[in-house]
Amino acid sequence: MNLGFIGLGLMGRPMVLNLRKAGFAVSVWARREASLTLVVAAGAVARGSIAEVAAASDLVFSCVPDAPQVAEVAQAVADGAREGLVYADMSTIAPAAAREIAADLKARGVIMLDAPVSGGEAGAIAGTLTLMVGGEQAAFDKALPAFQAMGQRVTRVGDSGAGQVAKACNQILTGVGVAAVAEALNFARMSGVDGARVREVLLGGLAASRVLDNHGQRMLDRNFKPGFKAWMHQKDMRIVMEEAHRLGLALPAAGATAQLFNALVGNGMGEEDSVAMLQLFETMSGGAA
Amino acid sequence: MNLGFIGLGLMGRPMVLNLRKAGFAVSVWARREASLTLVVAAGAVARGSIAEVAAASDLVFSCVPDAPQVAEVAQAVADGAREGLVYADMSTIAPAAAREIAADLKARGVIMLDAPVSGGEAGAIAGTLTLMVGGEQAAFDKALPAFQAMGQRVTRVGDSGAGQVAKACNQILTGVGVAAVAEALNFARMSGVDGARVREVLLGGLAASRVLDNHGQRMLDRNFKPGFKAWMHQKDMRIVMEEAHRLGLALPAAGATAQLFNALVGNGMGEEDSVAMLQLFETMSGGAA
Repeated sequence: MNLGFIGLGLMGRPMVLNLRKAGFAVSVWARREASLTLVVAAGAVARGSIAEVAAASDLVFSCVPDAPQVAEVAQAVADGAREGLVYADMSTIAPAAAREIAADLKARGVIMLDAPVSGGEAGAIAGTLTLMVGGEQAAFDKALPAFQAMGQRVTRVGDSGAGQVAKACNQILTGVGVAAVAEALNFARMSGVDGARVREVLLGGLAASRVLDNHGQRMLDRNFKPGFKAWMHQKDMRIVMEEAHRLGLALPAAGATAQLFNALVGNGMGEEDSVAMLQLFETMSGGAA
Repeated sequence: MNLGFIGLGLMGRPMVLNLRKAGFAVSVWARREASLTLVVAAGAVARGSIAEVAAASDLVFSCVPDAPQVAEVAQAVADGAREGLVYADMSTIAPAAAREIAADLKARGVIMLDAPVSGGEAGAIAGTLTLMVGGEQAAFDKALPAFQAMGQRVTRVGDSGAGQVAKACNQILTGVGVAAVAEALNFARMSGVDGARVREVLLGGLAASRVLDNHGQRMLDRNFKPGFKAWMHQKDMRIVMEEAHRLGLALPAAGATAQLFNALVGNGMGEEDSVAMLQLFETMSGGAA
């Protein structure tokens, strides 16, 4: 099976390397020459356009910033595609946008899967990403071996858009989780209590979570390096809130958290990890100790 | 070592039974005869007043609803206490109130520990509670064998009040966690996606938490039986928000969650488990499917 890959950013490049490691033939295209170097050295074949990538492929992946880029890639894929090509978009975009693009492509003979990932750059490099997939079962089955070369846990959640819904739920839980852990650790500090001990005790009970464990430790270490940049989580929370608006849904905890990500980015911490949210609370409490 | 125990409610009774099982002599008092039956049958000795319990004890525990009751018990304990008695209150109250009562008692020769628990009635029965303790090390060491008969994880977090601070952090994380899981599962449902699959996928990644696992499953099973009653979590969130007000701290995610607990109790679901919060979101979304 011949693969194509569009979007050779921080996530896309290591994903292509893992596809190559698993022995897949991969065609790529990128606007910038520099994005190609690493993957071409690993045996990927550079093509002259997205349509040429599609023409050479049975299955095309993409990993780009947001819905407008996905729509653009999708049309270019359809321009070059043979009937029945599967296009799996791994970007995080709104469920409604994913469904709309999939319906457009279907009319042009291309089957689209939405397959957003979690696990960040580290997961992309290690090949341990979680993939949440929406779309037709047959297309999922076709893409599965390639998905498994990029991720550890690959699940078809449901029909078109269901992968993006699961990803939105993931961003609600991790975003609200980071806010709650930052609030709790700042509460402990302002009460004169050692946050490290509080984290340790709470990890033994119902309050235990990967966010308290992983992000909590990074807050205590004052390690605000990404990981997952705050502006990216801000973008994901925007998607969640837009979808909530469209559906007429109240999300009070996620809504408060989306506002905190706005403040985080507004305070110049967009390029830091989400755990920098602790600093936002410290600033509001008169500065760190 | 002779123990006393005040507050023979849903939590207190099984705690006394576990102290008896571990072979401790326990004096008890209760306003209502019915509260005594079970523990007296297990060998606890009923006394005529709290002061009489204190007079017969080296170490007195209490587990009552809120700070006014703790203050009342504390004074009665001091009335009967010998010099150096340790009084360990296991109720959940404000850190500031715990510190104030401890300071009052110290002036009367009684050493107080704050030792709130998490794990609920099931944990009290199984002896698997988590105990978060604040106060002097020597008093903690004295109480430790008895604490270990009631709980599995017993940690001295810091000085007076530190146990209550840790418990407040616990209630922030579990309360916000329940709200976020309810928001995510309702978001999935309103998007036409199976919440059970979403929970399963997310448990494999960074969004994993005991709340998503345990409370999420109970929401999907529509099992709203306590567990931990919504009005009790509402009370604990009130303590958190009062302490935040006193300290001049912003807790946006916890604040939104406290409002949701108000609405939950206001909608007549106070006697149900916190997971009934899912129903609140369903009501706001036009009812359950």
